[in-house]
Amino acid sequence: METITFIPTADQLGYTFGGKDPVLRLKPGTAMTLWTQDAFGGALRRTTDKASVCLGHDLNPQTGPFYVEGAEPGDTLVVHLVDLTPARTWGASATIPFFGGLTSTPLDPTIQEPLPERTWIYEYDSAAHTVAFTAQGSEFSAALPANPMLGTVGVAPAQREVRTSLVPDYFGGNMDTPEMRAGTTAYFGVNVEGALFSLGDGHYRQGEGESCGTAVEGAMHVTAIVDLIKGGGPQWPRLESNTHIMSVGSARPLENAWKAGQVDMIEWLGSLYGLDRLDAYQLLTQISEVPLANVVDTNFSVVTKVDKRLLPKATVYGGIHAEMTSRAASLGSISY
Amino acid sequence: METITFIPTADQLGYTFGGKDPVLRLKPGTAMTLWTQDAFGGALRRTTDKASVCLGHDLNPQTGPFYVEGAEPGDTLVVHLVDLTPARTWGASATIPFFGGLTSTPLDPTIQEPLPERTWIYEYDSAAHTVAFTAQGSEFSAALPANPMLGTVGVAPAQREVRTSLVPDYFGGNMDTPEMRAGTTAYFGVNVEGALFSLGDGHYRQGEGESCGTAVEGAMHVTAIVDLIKGGGPQWPRLESNTHIMSVGSARPLENAWKAGQVDMIEWLGSLYGLDRLDAYQLLTQISEVPLANVVDTNFSVVTKVDKRLLPKATVYGGIHAEMTSRAASLGSISY
Amino acid sequence: METITFIPTADQLGYTFGGKDPVLRLKPGTAMTLWTQDAFGGALRRTTDKASVCLGHDLNPQTGPFYVEGAEPGDTLVVHLVDLTPARTWGASATIPFFGGLTSTPLDPTIQEPLPERTWIYEYDSAAHTVAFTAQGSEFSAALPANPMLGTVGVAPAQREVRTSLVPDYFGGNMDTPEMRAGTTAYFGVNVEGALFSLGDGHYRQGEGESCGTAVEGAMHVTAIVDLIKGGGPQWPRLESNTHIMSVGSARPLENAWKAGQVDMIEWLGSLYGLDRLDAYQLLTQISEVPLANVVDTNFSVVTKVDKRLLPKATVYGGIHAEMTSRAASLGSISY
Amino acid sequence: METITFIPTADQLGYTFGGKDPVLRLKPGTAMTLWTQDAFGGALRRTTDKASVCLGHDLNPQTGPFYVEGAEPGDTLVVHLVDLTPARTWGASATIPFFGGLTSTPLDPTIQEPLPERTWIYEYDSAAHTVAFTAQGSEFSAALPANPMLGTVGVAPAQREVRTSLVPDYFGGNMDTPEMRAGTTAYFGVNVEGALFSLGDGHYRQGEGESCGTAVEGAMHVTAIVDLIKGGGPQWPRLESNTHIMSVGSARPLENAWKAGQVDMIEWLGSLYGLDRLDAYQLLTQISEVPLANVVDTNFSVVTKVDKRLLPKATVYGGIHAEMTSRAASLGSISY
Repeated sequence: METITFIPTADQLGYTFGGKDPVLRLKPGTAMTLWTQDAFGGALRRTTDKASVCLGHDLNPQTGPFYVEGAEPGDTLVVHLVDLTPARTWGASATIPFFGGLTSTPLDPTIQEPLPERTWIYEYDSAAHTVAFTAQGSEFSAALPANPMLGTVGVAPAQREVRTSLVPDYFGGNMDTPEMRAGTTAYFGVNVEGALFSLGDGHYRQGEGESCGTAVEGAMHVTAIVDLIKGGGPQWPRLESNTHIMSVGSARPLENAWKAGQVDMIEWLGSLYGLDRLDAYQLLTQISEVPLANVVDTNFSVVTKVDKRLLPKATVYGGIHAEMTSRAASLGSISY
Repeated sequence: METITFIPTADQLGYTFGGKDPVLRLKPGTAMTLWTQDAFGGALRRTTDKASVCLGHDLNPQTGPFYVEGAEPGDTLVVHLVDLTPARTWGASATIPFFGGLTSTPLDPTIQEPLPERTWIYEYDSAAHTVAFTAQGSEFSAALPANPMLGTVGVAPAQREVRTSLVPDYFGGNMDTPEMRAGTTAYFGVNVEGALFSLGDGHYRQGEGESCGTAVEGAMHVTAIVDLIKGGGPQWPRLESNTHIMSVGSARPLENAWKAGQVDMIEWLGSLYGLDRLDAYQLLTQISEVPLANVVDTNFSVVTKVDKRLLPKATVYGGIHAEMTSRAASLGSISY
Repeated sequence: METITFIPTADQLGYTFGGKDPVLRLKPGTAMTLWTQDAFGGALRRTTDKASVCLGHDLNPQTGPFYVEGAEPGDTLVVHLVDLTPARTWGASATIPFFGGLTSTPLDPTIQEPLPERTWIYEYDSAAHTVAFTAQGSEFSAALPANPMLGTVGVAPAQREVRTSLVPDYFGGNMDTPEMRAGTTAYFGVNVEGALFSLGDGHYRQGEGESCGTAVEGAMHVTAIVDLIKGGGPQWPRLESNTHIMSVGSARPLENAWKAGQVDMIEWLGSLYGLDRLDAYQLLTQISEVPLANVVDTNFSVVTKVDKRLLPKATVYGGIHAEMTSRAASLGSISY
Repeated sequence: METITFIPTADQLGYTFGGKDPVLRLKPGTAMTLWTQDAFGGALRRTTDKASVCLGHDLNPQTGPFYVEGAEPGDTLVVHLVDLTPARTWGASATIPFFGGLTSTPLDPTIQEPLPERTWIYEYDSAAHTVAFTAQGSEFSAALPANPMLGTVGVAPAQREVRTSLVPDYFGGNMDTPEMRAGTTAYFGVNVEGALFSLGDGHYRQGEGESCGTAVEGAMHVTAIVDLIKGGGPQWPRLESNTHIMSVGSARPLENAWKAGQVDMIEWLGSLYGLDRLDAYQLLTQISEVPLANVVDTNFSVVTKVDKRLLPKATVYGGIHAEMTSRAASLGSISY
């Protein structure tokens, strides 16, 4: 298996999906060792650093894009996350004026005052694999299990568009779901030649919904295997883990993000099990798991999950998830 | 512990929260053995029965209301579900014209045609504790684990209102969350003297979101313990299990249901741990679990869950959940 | 024409649609002279009175309900507003904490602080027929044309429900549209025997949307003629003026209120002109006028208007609007 | 006054805001005579042409972009529409599968079937200045007054983005408001050097909301004067006519589009009249006119209008609207 290592310099970072020349070309089947900057661009290092210093600057830097040889519109890009390891000993989170789920925002404005700014620094204990929350208004702390994930993974959009890395949509992007963790295989519909995928926005931990708008944001070491399936590009990003298949819809209002993932899953169940639309709708009704991803970004994202263990064994995308899991194992223990 | 058994006759069933005289008065601390009719009023018994025969009739019959002595506006009604046992050997689900999450509805109309009607009957295997899905458009079946729950539990609303049993809102009602299962303690703010709570809408199993609008609907044997805490009535229904505390918001659009539960949980975390609002917001951001409840009813419902095991031990509502769990155990094995 | 005068005492006022005994029974065709209290119950008389003193009290008092003899579910109640005359020399408006369109609210909460409270008193100049806005944070005033309207007109709901007078829905209620002015005929579907309609919430003037949540609220003298058409009850409240036919949808989110009125108007145009659904949809697309009603109440309300002068002459509800306009003229000049 | 004529060839048409080289550079103060293709690219010429033939092709071609010399981020681009004259003797409208306001769409999907496709051709009578609607499912026709407008006018977006011409947003674009008619002055915040504005999507007539998704679409002759104000770029597109000032918000759900325009108007009223935020909010509440623009595009658009005649005379953007109206008159009678 070909292996590529890419650590972006500051001026190689990307802030869009589409509209940027690829930093590298690679063949399907390549394993990649990458580093991602955090969403604040590293600007928050102590609790006295305020997130508003980032306003007016580009946010959510991405590593990439990568040109995948042979990828054409309509194909399926496959990204298997082998490993995500925090690249710093701390992550940062913050309230940002008029950003987040429980405040008015430019897309949902009121004439109220913004919430106060506050920054939290979470020490990452790599031995215990925890991140430490420390309250600022009182004496309280809690060590929370780290659960590294990538908030943002996606490909270039269609229709000549260029979108900021803050947006989640049909091309992936800033979906902010904890399901994007090591062991997960992601499937994206390819919209342009070479797919031009990129990734970033490491979270050492995030709750479902990402209420205040920022997770425990941190630089991340990423190992991933990238592959290509000709044709079959899904309408919305799909994920597969050892236990679940998932579809991630992104839209506003929130029910529309849910509907998108549900309709996609109905189509998927139909094709996997030969169910007609009504039967797949009925079956999904009784087995759907629906954790929120984010209710804070430009679009909201909702995951529709189906537990594979409830259903007869089916071959998903030619069994590529199992194959990649096995290829990942062959990489041996990973250190950065 | 006082114990009451109540099996409603057809004309004792209720179809509203508020506006109905109590069927019984009971003292706080009473254990109740109840039976609930299914949401279709038992009308769907075979796949040739269509749900549209129910239109124009009352739907979602409730068992109750029960007058809890001493309950006054502002108090907290506590309902601990001890046991939910399917009362039939089958449950039913159906597509209903212009009802459900992936169709236009009277509250979100289009001028498209309705989906076709179809009814599914799920055999309940009490030994294996499964319900069997059988496709109608192809050969496919799957035995799914039963997960009995109550779709509808609530109290009379405030402001003189009477609401149908189809509505979920701040008073509970038709929230349709799988979290309302045996072992769960529910807390409701009391709005009228006696609280006037009722329950029904048994589901032998339901996915998160209840996509097509109907779960595996079935009559249910219910054992519950009812208690009262003076004062402290929460703004939204709260739930507690052995592992989680939860708040259930209901509204439209879906993000508003989410916001309601999140804001309530921030207040709850604040009062449990002495956190100020921003610290509680931040902490919730990193630990929130957010499974959807329903995206099909008159209001949509979203659950905000916090895993108690992530946080220091706290005394929730005076420890009444543990106490009720222990009282439930003292009831011994339950048969109906 | 039979004529009834009814001036409610404070304890005769109603705060719900449904759930209240009628204050009067009347025959179809009756002319009524009524008085309505303002939405604050008269509590705001000077700028130092704050609206929050009303919280916890009943708001939006209604005059009624009136039992219309012969009205049965499925019928069409017809209410023609003959005259609306301000009953005081001043109206009041106010910001109320967590109420209004440009603030978070209990149905769309955030954890931001509420807006400051402020009360404005508008002098009503009956000679000039203006209401005077006076700024409080600076020197500025403007005399605005008075445009008296009723924020709330409706009938008892179906399905045994009782709803507060703050809610607009399919039964009318708190729609808050400036179209509800003298000269307008309103059509409501009857849900219960006697229809049980009531009205109130006079506004001396209101912009479309009622942004801050309160118009220029004032007590009103109301003259109306009430009639009944057997059958034909519309799904949403319909209005007719000399120039327009209108349908008022109420729902959340706002697009759903729009859809409701649009779909109802498509059905209406279809029945008036023999258009099939697609032709009516197309025609409406090019002629629809859509002023917002309110974006602040429990449901939002949107008016779909069609200018009758663009289309061939049609007989609407048997020509009852013209007939009532003529009956109104026969009442001669009105003084209270 | 410098005058430029530009009639794009087919391959000069643009389909995005941003991402395209300018077709022309011009100085502030230039008058332009332009031609715009219709949104279907001229593909619908008779009722047997179906809009679905356009799917997969670029839609909504724009004339431009034009580079305005001296325009820098933060400036205000001023576009005064002098004249809009239909460039064909017919316009076309159509239902498109899964597109429009009263059907499910990819952004708000259901599993229902699409509406049938149908195309309507409206003859444009230049003498009577009417467009003729002809029903297809029955005998019915109506001559409707033509009301030429541009559905799409905008500038390049910020943050390196490129958006399709189907999207309305803070940079203008596909707002689809009938207010964009001859005599209107539009103000856009400049996001990139040269502003890069373009326009197109002529409608010979459109109702508010554009229910079915397509107006009476037709090629248009456009005369406009373009100017630049240094600084002062508004957050949302603003319009000014002889009688009104307006702000156009675009977002989903629809209430958010409304909020955006309202908040912008509060700021505008504040700066014009020295009102503090609460006074401006109150005043707007009583004088706002709110016609919908579109409820069918990728974002929905809502216009907040204020009648200038209700308020003391104020100088808006230095009085440039009056000045441009006068410059427009100096162009004399326009023929194409």
